[in-house]
Amino acid sequence: MNSLSSEQINQIIQGVEPPSELWRQKARTHLDTLTKPLGSLGRLEDLAAQVVAIRQDGFGAPIKKGAYIFAADHGISAEGVSAYPREVTHQMVLNYLSHGAAINVLADLHHAELCIVDVGVDADFDDLPGLHRRKIARGTQNMLHEPAMTDGQLAQALEIGAEMASAAVAAGVNMIAIGEMGIGNTTCASAITCALTGATAFTATGRGTGVGSVAHSRKIAVVEAVCRKHFDAVSSPSPLDILQCVGGLEIAAMTGMILTAVKHKLVILIDGFICTAAAALAVSIAPDVCGYLIVGHQSEEPGHKLLLDRLKLQPVLSLNMRLGEATGAVLAMPIIESAMALYNQMATFSSAGVSVAS
Amino acid sequence: MNSLSSEQINQIIQGVEPPSELWRQKARTHLDTLTKPLGSLGRLEDLAAQVVAIRQDGFGAPIKKGAYIFAADHGISAEGVSAYPREVTHQMVLNYLSHGAAINVLADLHHAELCIVDVGVDADFDDLPGLHRRKIARGTQNMLHEPAMTDGQLAQALEIGAEMASAAVAAGVNMIAIGEMGIGNTTCASAITCALTGATAFTATGRGTGVGSVAHSRKIAVVEAVCRKHFDAVSSPSPLDILQCVGGLEIAAMTGMILTAVKHKLVILIDGFICTAAAALAVSIAPDVCGYLIVGHQSEEPGHKLLLDRLKLQPVLSLNMRLGEATGAVLAMPIIESAMALYNQMATFSSAGVSVAS
Repeated sequence: MNSLSSEQINQIIQGVEPPSELWRQKARTHLDTLTKPLGSLGRLEDLAAQVVAIRQDGFGAPIKKGAYIFAADHGISAEGVSAYPREVTHQMVLNYLSHGAAINVLADLHHAELCIVDVGVDADFDDLPGLHRRKIARGTQNMLHEPAMTDGQLAQALEIGAEMASAAVAAGVNMIAIGEMGIGNTTCASAITCALTGATAFTATGRGTGVGSVAHSRKIAVVEAVCRKHFDAVSSPSPLDILQCVGGLEIAAMTGMILTAVKHKLVILIDGFICTAAAALAVSIAPDVCGYLIVGHQSEEPGHKLLLDRLKLQPVLSLNMRLGEATGAVLAMPIIESAMALYNQMATFSSAGVSVAS
Repeated sequence: MNSLSSEQINQIIQGVEPPSELWRQKARTHLDTLTKPLGSLGRLEDLAAQVVAIRQDGFGAPIKKGAYIFAADHGISAEGVSAYPREVTHQMVLNYLSHGAAINVLADLHHAELCIVDVGVDADFDDLPGLHRRKIARGTQNMLHEPAMTDGQLAQALEIGAEMASAAVAAGVNMIAIGEMGIGNTTCASAITCALTGATAFTATGRGTGVGSVAHSRKIAVVEAVCRKHFDAVSSPSPLDILQCVGGLEIAAMTGMILTAVKHKLVILIDGFICTAAAALAVSIAPDVCGYLIVGHQSEEPGHKLLLDRLKLQPVLSLNMRLGEATGAVLAMPIIESAMALYNQMATFSSAGVSVAS
């Protein structure tokens, strides 16, 4: 279906290598010398070892954090799949820029620099601080009737994500949280989940921002129809086909950011359902991506669990959140920082003169 | 069994009142005006509402955090119930004071002032900064043969905990994390769990700091024998009886701190299994205590889940930790702070001009 050239695809996956098992082992050995019962820091030890394996150093350098929200509208919103009207995408971007949203509060509290990237909001923005104006279109096409994006739009969205990763590196950021805003985009994430995992629309489709029962049934029917239209004739659609047909501009941009962030050995905190759909596509494109991902939280959306099971990833937090906009990813940042501070700062049994276990 | 006077017991429970349901409702109403789908912050909303109900204000005042580790030795350690020798209690207190332990790193990172309280370590300490020297005895008696504490020791330990709560209030602290250090004390916590919940020693006894299979079997047998000795002839032992017979000096001090902290409307973050055993006893003494408790994390110790089920409390984090020393409580602090920052700082739908759900 999509016609990205093989050169374009090679460029996307070139340079993706798994985290270093040698460094992970070094990290494990170090963790076992610290003044605590062996393994007693549980997942904090796994997270520290993962970060060391990604960074290929002890992350002695200060952690510099960035949070990236990609925003776009969706043709599918015309089908009444959301509790909120389409214009809320635009309104919430303005809310981010005037510092009133949940992610603003969390990014401030946990010292992550926040970047908002408009890749497809159906409104014009002035040149405002904190906003990256990279609009590709004023929303996707309605995927019930045609592919959400053209080839060119898909390539552009992937490229904008890649550029944001490079910009993060240039700014000295070494840990990123990725999230999104886009009325209608849980519908895309559900369709992506069906295409990737073979799940039914019924199991992969939740209430999103909180639709009632009637709208939920309609949403399930829409996801089912969308998948039938695009994938019934295809035995195993490629991840780029899936992205183009049932994705969104912000989802493709997240996929692009993840793929390039991996090449720069960034620690990548993934947010909820929609972001994980983008990440799952990145992993389908280049399986070694998976080792770089830390899933911030378990979303309330049922499809999220299906994707995490497929990726064999366990979220850091499980707080029944379903907000998006990178909130679950940023909320996990202090946990990762805790793991790294413990790794770098605790005394060893020998330095502290503490007896070891019998 | 124990002979605390009814005047002493009345003094302990006097002034314990539940958090304010009126304030919780006010908090819920406010949360529903903020620019996010209704309820989409999940447990963060529950936590914010709980804190508001405890404090009876919006917690607009800065959060000031303290972490308290109560340390003591245990007569039962003679029975080979721990992977570490008894002197590790002393050594770890020195490690806290020289800033090398996990809790030092976490308290620093999350800006909690750390107080170490010696209520029963089997060693002498110099007058060192950060150490409260309140030793009652050089460890408890061996509860396999006699009650762990005398009446007087129990009363003293409860009182020291109460004093630490008052000192926290005097220092302007409004959110406390409570934890412990004491080789042998998961054995106490298991016995307390059996006595409170009716669980068997087998289900309530884990591997603590990491004992092997043989020592684990011995530990289970010890817990069983301890419970048989103290509780077989008693149909329903009082919480103070349980504390005196199978508790520890640090456990009683934590119970005392919790009971007094509630009277001062402090937000109380509970650590793992041993601290939760102290909290469960406090709740048995005064049921209204329960609404003040936030359980930082789900410990790997199997008895922890039994206690949390009894208390109907759900931990904030679940990271397979089993370290104690308040680490799981302090690690949850940034989550509670996040909840309060969101509560206090987010824009409302009307202030931000965002459309509400249909």
